[in-house]
Amino acid sequence: MKSDIAISQAAELRPITDIAVAAGIRTDELIPQGQYKAKLHQKLLKRAATAPQGKLVLVTAITPTPLGEGKTVTTIGLSQGLNTIGQKVMACIRQPSMGPVFGVKGGAAGGGYSQVAPMEELNLHLTGDIHAVTAAHNLAAAAIDARLFHEQKLGDGFEEKNGMKALNFDADSVVWNRVVDMNDRALRRIQIGINEPGKTVNGIERESGFDISAASELMAILALASDLKDLRQRLGQVVLAYSRSGEAITAEQVGVAGAMAAILRDAAQPTLMQTLEGVPTLVHAGPFANIAHGNSSIIADRMALGLADIVVTEGGFGSDMGFEKACNIKARAAGKGPDAAVVVATLRGLKANSGRYDLRPGQALPKAIFEPDAEALEAGFANLKWHIDNAKRYGVPVVVALNRFPDDTDAELNWLADKVAQSGAKVALSEAFAKGGAGATELAKAVVEALAEPAEFTHLYDAEQPIEAKLLTMAEVGYGGRGIDLSEQAKADIERLTKLGYGHLPVCMAKTPLSISHDPALKGVPTDFVVPVRGLRLCAGAGFIYVLTGNVMTMPGLSDKPAYLNIDIDEDGNITGIDE
Amino acid sequence: MKSDIAISQAAELRPITDIAVAAGIRTDELIPQGQYKAKLHQKLLKRAATAPQGKLVLVTAITPTPLGEGKTVTTIGLSQGLNTIGQKVMACIRQPSMGPVFGVKGGAAGGGYSQVAPMEELNLHLTGDIHAVTAAHNLAAAAIDARLFHEQKLGDGFEEKNGMKALNFDADSVVWNRVVDMNDRALRRIQIGINEPGKTVNGIERESGFDISAASELMAILALASDLKDLRQRLGQVVLAYSRSGEAITAEQVGVAGAMAAILRDAAQPTLMQTLEGVPTLVHAGPFANIAHGNSSIIADRMALGLADIVVTEGGFGSDMGFEKACNIKARAAGKGPDAAVVVATLRGLKANSGRYDLRPGQALPKAIFEPDAEALEAGFANLKWHIDNAKRYGVPVVVALNRFPDDTDAELNWLADKVAQSGAKVALSEAFAKGGAGATELAKAVVEALAEPAEFTHLYDAEQPIEAKLLTMAEVGYGGRGIDLSEQAKADIERLTKLGYGHLPVCMAKTPLSISHDPALKGVPTDFVVPVRGLRLCAGAGFIYVLTGNVMTMPGLSDKPAYLNIDIDEDGNITGIDE
Repeated sequence: MKSDIAISQAAELRPITDIAVAAGIRTDELIPQGQYKAKLHQKLLKRAATAPQGKLVLVTAITPTPLGEGKTVTTIGLSQGLNTIGQKVMACIRQPSMGPVFGVKGGAAGGGYSQVAPMEELNLHLTGDIHAVTAAHNLAAAAIDARLFHEQKLGDGFEEKNGMKALNFDADSVVWNRVVDMNDRALRRIQIGINEPGKTVNGIERESGFDISAASELMAILALASDLKDLRQRLGQVVLAYSRSGEAITAEQVGVAGAMAAILRDAAQPTLMQTLEGVPTLVHAGPFANIAHGNSSIIADRMALGLADIVVTEGGFGSDMGFEKACNIKARAAGKGPDAAVVVATLRGLKANSGRYDLRPGQALPKAIFEPDAEALEAGFANLKWHIDNAKRYGVPVVVALNRFPDDTDAELNWLADKVAQSGAKVALSEAFAKGGAGATELAKAVVEALAEPAEFTHLYDAEQPIEAKLLTMAEVGYGGRGIDLSEQAKADIERLTKLGYGHLPVCMAKTPLSISHDPALKGVPTDFVVPVRGLRLCAGAGFIYVLTGNVMTMPGLSDKPAYLNIDIDEDGNITGIDE
Repeated sequence: MKSDIAISQAAELRPITDIAVAAGIRTDELIPQGQYKAKLHQKLLKRAATAPQGKLVLVTAITPTPLGEGKTVTTIGLSQGLNTIGQKVMACIRQPSMGPVFGVKGGAAGGGYSQVAPMEELNLHLTGDIHAVTAAHNLAAAAIDARLFHEQKLGDGFEEKNGMKALNFDADSVVWNRVVDMNDRALRRIQIGINEPGKTVNGIERESGFDISAASELMAILALASDLKDLRQRLGQVVLAYSRSGEAITAEQVGVAGAMAAILRDAAQPTLMQTLEGVPTLVHAGPFANIAHGNSSIIADRMALGLADIVVTEGGFGSDMGFEKACNIKARAAGKGPDAAVVVATLRGLKANSGRYDLRPGQALPKAIFEPDAEALEAGFANLKWHIDNAKRYGVPVVVALNRFPDDTDAELNWLADKVAQSGAKVALSEAFAKGGAGATELAKAVVEALAEPAEFTHLYDAEQPIEAKLLTMAEVGYGGRGIDLSEQAKADIERLTKLGYGHLPVCMAKTPLSISHDPALKGVPTDFVVPVRGLRLCAGAGFIYVLTGNVMTMPGLSDKPAYLNIDIDEDGNITGIDE
């Protein structure tokens, strides 16, 4: 089979204006960006709100493994399958970060014959949204350090000179890093504002750092805002630092929220693209799935639900991560939860989840994982069963998509399909990677059937509860653990955030995706664990508190043989090597 | 009169596709970016090369003052004036940085009724070129630190593991900073790669810093590349650091040049916009005019010269800066120099150049400067005379544009026009700010006359000369000084760069724009000065050596009352306050 980029570049794409017309988008709602991309104007939100509403299908997966379960392939493939059986469908996906494309992984546009195209545009700048997030974020950072510098330099004269109230930053309590869309480990911890002795011309010296842009709270805000007005308000609520008396200092108080909104204005418009089979696809926002909620935007969903009968979207990692956050964070902000869940599973992925293999990053994978092994599969099935039950906990019908790989045997696939059927979920094989939509028609039919079932979406907890109660619910009901273990820091954080008036926000668990628990070593379905809570961080603009249960990496590094070595252009500008 | 943004937002712009058709651009050469912007495809370069070639008019100015001479206003106004009198004309201008928009200044789209529109799009992201420069630059920076880290960590094992030759970076000789399009003084000097004691997970600790993106060598490369192939080659030639044995380490050797080219591919396409009167305008690249050459791109010029009969462009600062560099650096790379020069002068600017006023940044301007003062004007005229003679030195006919301000008297303007005429240049009043093209028809006619004169463009020096000889020519003939004073560092730099094989490159003088000399305190026409040369820096990809004659600021700061305080959006996304 051809490489992803070869398939993508060989595809005969339709002009994006044709895709838009077929999707029911009006000319004045479309802002073309070249031949195959277009921004959708905010005015479409109003029309979509009064149109008949489509159904929202959320694709999730078993606990992720180094093998790749093919969640985006299935999301795109399912949308193509639904299109093939005559449904009016759109897909809504996250925008991949550009930085990691030059690091270890290839593209993130799906794969095989289930891709969003052109894949090199999706994986590079697209329409500039991540650049806008980076710029708006770094403007706020520059504003903090500038204000810190001028208030300190002018002293009492600051208020007199400018007619603005001094904010009295505590330089050690600035919580706003800078960001860059690049894998750059040397920027994780930096000392800024270094001066010649006795000078201050370069600002106030302090320790800080850079995160990758997708980790910016602004990326979460872009994904959770319901429209431009809401975006502007959320930007004002962002807490950048604390004052010497412990009060939160917001972007509104610094006076930078309006300029941030100006920078983000166009980024608030989803980008319309197409799958290889011409299914209209909205690409919008790409927040992390640990320190943020890991789902594409509410604005894109709102537009798509007013245009299509079925909208297929996906959440990051397994159902304990992106799906949970879609239900407890995104659905709350959107006022709308998913109407059905699709859980992607693979034979190899379940075997890897059996706990019988030692799978460490960078090590060669054991061959046995790719061969028939009834015991490993049975042991691994428990993980799938947990994710099925987890999705059901939110009141939505569940369809399991068995993403077939070439060497998979019919015997094992049939055994697995039976087990799923017995567990009360629908099940269908997906061969979307190799066959595109034609390989996903059974899956599409199962999803249509599931959507016809009565369902009542529910959140896992009432956000108005105290923070500690929400954390307990997450640990015990959300993950099946035995409770939480709050560090002294976490207790102090809970007290402080509650006192500051943020106790009503939902919690966003920053935990490993590699286990249902907090501990990546606990495979399958862990039960006897207590979730450690190390600390809590406020994202007042995004509207959640994220909860550290372990170390979280917010700035990746480049390996000793990074992906950029393979990437180049020819004289005509064709890009090569992006998926190698 | 209305504010710039009010005029721009009230203007009835034509769809960019109409502008393109009128300019002779074919549908398949146009890549629309929304309604009022479009990228021009590289394929246009080939067609333009074989078309009849237009004439290139380069707008420059007297020595700049804090008052603003209106060079971009005149550039846009002149193009509108030429259009008004029936010429087939295009304008080519630089893309303004976004960072400074949030700092002290307003927009940079021209002003009044001579603007490129929409001004808020020009001043913010435009079509993402500066973001691409930032990303490509920072990828190279991340690649350096990653390679440094892995080579050090793996030692002899590096070559064995990767099959790549170790580059043996001297960590103290990395010459490649990181960049951000933001005014952020706290990033000027930073310590990166900070680790817990005994750890190396965050890379190798060293001092570094950020420059503003416009100061990136990649911005100069974007402006000087003749096509994609040339861009790719130049990227490979960029010197990032030196090895422990003193050899230059290029981006090609690091293996990152291809990926940088992939990031910059779309940025190599100029952006088509329009003036308020519908003159097609190419916006492309915005390199600094001190450490780089301060002119818009060769690619844009090449396209425009194949489409229009007259192309109006501008160089940064006075004729000793952007104009000189257009002639000695850009023209050499393009194989084409300007066909005529327009020197912009104002009554107030000449008075400010008389040396009779103490004009310091941040201080209120003396009122006398705005009032009739024959003596100050006469003293200041010497500066204009120098710039006229300087432009003539390059063999091109000169037109002086007197940019009228509302309080200027006819008596003084007439006196000045007579003096200019006596000095052998054409002269015309420009009222382009207040009246648009109708206020620049006299200027347009003078330019058409000038273009009909016989002219023979010449460089100031032969680039093959030794570096020191080129510096002497610049100081003595370029500025009228008494020679150069090389520091020990500069001597060592010259020896080293010559030995490394870069002695044949043209020199790019990084000097103050506020005097014809190196010293901002020397007003009017300084003569008895020696240009100090502190050090030389190689830009092997851009193809010049820049020469430090004083401190150069490559990262601005934000003031205590920055411009972002005024900027906001409304619910419909209209941007306010960008020119306040």
